[in-house]
Amino acid sequence: MTITGDQSLMREINRMALVRAIQRVPGLSRAELAKETGLTKSTVSLLVQDLVEEGWLREADVQTTGAIGRRPTPLFLDGDRLAMIGAEVSIEQISVLTVSLKGDVIDELVEPLPGTQPSVVIKRLAHLIASLVEKAHSDGRHLLGIGVGVPGAVLDKYGVVKLAPNFPWRDIAFQTELAQELTALGVPGIRIQVQNDYDVAALSEYEFGSSPLPDPLIYLGVGVGVGAGIIVRDRLFLGAEGFAGEVGHSILQLEGPVCSCGRKGCAETFIGQRAISTQIVGHAGEILPVETIRQLLEHNDAATILAARRAGHYLGVLIQNIWTYFNPGRIVLGGSMCELGAPFLDAARLCLDRYAENCGLQLPEIQLSRYGARSVAVGAAALIKHALLRPLDIRFRDQ
Amino acid sequence: MTITGDQSLMREINRMALVRAIQRVPGLSRAELAKETGLTKSTVSLLVQDLVEEGWLREADVQTTGAIGRRPTPLFLDGDRLAMIGAEVSIEQISVLTVSLKGDVIDELVEPLPGTQPSVVIKRLAHLIASLVEKAHSDGRHLLGIGVGVPGAVLDKYGVVKLAPNFPWRDIAFQTELAQELTALGVPGIRIQVQNDYDVAALSEYEFGSSPLPDPLIYLGVGVGVGAGIIVRDRLFLGAEGFAGEVGHSILQLEGPVCSCGRKGCAETFIGQRAISTQIVGHAGEILPVETIRQLLEHNDAATILAARRAGHYLGVLIQNIWTYFNPGRIVLGGSMCELGAPFLDAARLCLDRYAENCGLQLPEIQLSRYGARSVAVGAAALIKHALLRPLDIRFRDQ
Repeated sequence: MTITGDQSLMREINRMALVRAIQRVPGLSRAELAKETGLTKSTVSLLVQDLVEEGWLREADVQTTGAIGRRPTPLFLDGDRLAMIGAEVSIEQISVLTVSLKGDVIDELVEPLPGTQPSVVIKRLAHLIASLVEKAHSDGRHLLGIGVGVPGAVLDKYGVVKLAPNFPWRDIAFQTELAQELTALGVPGIRIQVQNDYDVAALSEYEFGSSPLPDPLIYLGVGVGVGAGIIVRDRLFLGAEGFAGEVGHSILQLEGPVCSCGRKGCAETFIGQRAISTQIVGHAGEILPVETIRQLLEHNDAATILAARRAGHYLGVLIQNIWTYFNPGRIVLGGSMCELGAPFLDAARLCLDRYAENCGLQLPEIQLSRYGARSVAVGAAALIKHALLRPLDIRFRDQ
Repeated sequence: MTITGDQSLMREINRMALVRAIQRVPGLSRAELAKETGLTKSTVSLLVQDLVEEGWLREADVQTTGAIGRRPTPLFLDGDRLAMIGAEVSIEQISVLTVSLKGDVIDELVEPLPGTQPSVVIKRLAHLIASLVEKAHSDGRHLLGIGVGVPGAVLDKYGVVKLAPNFPWRDIAFQTELAQELTALGVPGIRIQVQNDYDVAALSEYEFGSSPLPDPLIYLGVGVGVGAGIIVRDRLFLGAEGFAGEVGHSILQLEGPVCSCGRKGCAETFIGQRAISTQIVGHAGEILPVETIRQLLEHNDAATILAARRAGHYLGVLIQNIWTYFNPGRIVLGGSMCELGAPFLDAARLCLDRYAENCGLQLPEIQLSRYGARSVAVGAAALIKHALLRPLDIRFRDQ
């Protein structure tokens, strides 16, 4: 990075630094912001005025205390006027949400996947988005952009879905096609970003979480697919080709069961929804819906309890490995299988506790995802916020 | 990050951006540098003049071509006037090197470890460093700093060795004590940084490598310990507590052999020097020197060949897992066991090729380390260069 005279970029960097500072420490006054960021008080005042006018920040009412002198006005993120739209395209359904700057879900539309043809899916997705755009506008909200999470590898610069094996899709110009459909529906020129589902899910924890934010933060998603979204040094970590975090395809057992990817002994063959279904049914093939597995557990079905415990134990091993690879500050667990609850998660915890005890180290913080089944869609909205708050990433090559 | 009026910092950022640009593309002219960095030609000229005077850059002789007009002067990193000292403290020996900005090893001192008491080791290390400092000064070189790589977990901000299990050391104020010893020897006030051995080894590949540099770059060290140094987005990646990359303690087999860390089935129990020795000797205990194992291989000792192949196969599994976790642009293999050559490395390759074939993906680039047994000491020198070229990391909080 070099620092040159691009005034509009420097202004945007400073504006967004103020928003991030308020996000870290809600309630700072202008004077405290100046101290926090190193900007002069007059610069802060000018920029804050704009940010309040545009809907990024709001001023809280100042409490009259009876003390002499005016108390400084605390500033907060505004949860009312700006919003993002986040969408999840999964193999079962399309979910579209309107999400506030503070991470509140304002509106929501969910419907079953209308087929697996990309053009059919994108057309339907555009319709759902367009309804929420209209709703947002009629509510007087300004939309910052649209994020989409898909279960596959994405070239995020171009919004191309390189590979989504469960549909199966390959090299789909998702972002371009979605933009065209939206334009046709009278919603032109809005920022669109597409990214892997578990990657954006990690952002749902990070962008709407409270300080101090952990570094690294890992979101481990366990559903039909098993994978991780990783945040390192305040950014999504994607790897050389966007495949980083494919921990479901790390080997947990030499010459283990054949995985959907073709390898043998992948974590997914022990932990994923398919593996648990196979253990319950007694043979490979069918993937049981999470609701079915949950009901079997509630009725104390012996095979199901055993299957959940076995998968949970392997989940513990996978988390132990993630711990050694990344030394995360926090691991967040999400995905459909985490909805199975106790027998699955308890077995994982038991396994992990034993590893920690054996090596005498303290485990990282491990939590369930705060948005549950909405993690991917909320995270897709968070992707827009994440990008806008970091203008250098968009306009500058930082090397 | 905010951009404020700290002129001296802005100047340093721009200066080091010019050095990094020349490192990426050797031979750029001042005009090309201006285009590359976005700085004005006059700023570039002023800064380059200083950088040439100080020994960072040198101007190449301009070839007279007979064409009309003056050809622009190509600029290169200067390999003569500035240098760093890099040291490795291993369980066997202390190595200290003087390394040029371009990564050439200028001087070298190696001697056996004089015991495992930290104070004894640090005193001896200081003596060796002081001799090389004197030599460098008499050769007219200016030293930018001293880097030290140690086999353990380091709090790099304070240069404290938190845990080095093989000595065993715990909470050693390495940087402070080394600075005191050096001051006593008449070498005061020089920048000192301490870091994990495999982490700095990764920097030996990164700071002295040629463009384009891979992102992420992983250095996988296989010796008595097995671990990875990781570079992500142009920085060392250390994790929440500095333990990231401890891949030798990821589980390759449930309920496998007990590891030195207390866990069972860690990668180190299959791949490390201790594991190979155990396989050769037939029982646990002794760690055979790498030279002994190599001689046994040369004499076609059946048990040794089998042990090397078995360990190599597991190395392949570990690399496959690193591939799925990090999606690296390049994996560099180093450490004493990589000196075993064919039976070990061929088995790893065979294993990896099968994984790649099964899943239909292309493996990342895999290379042997360019500095071999000197990787850690050269990398420790690279750590100083890495830090100086990134002044924002040192003086600014980038969030």
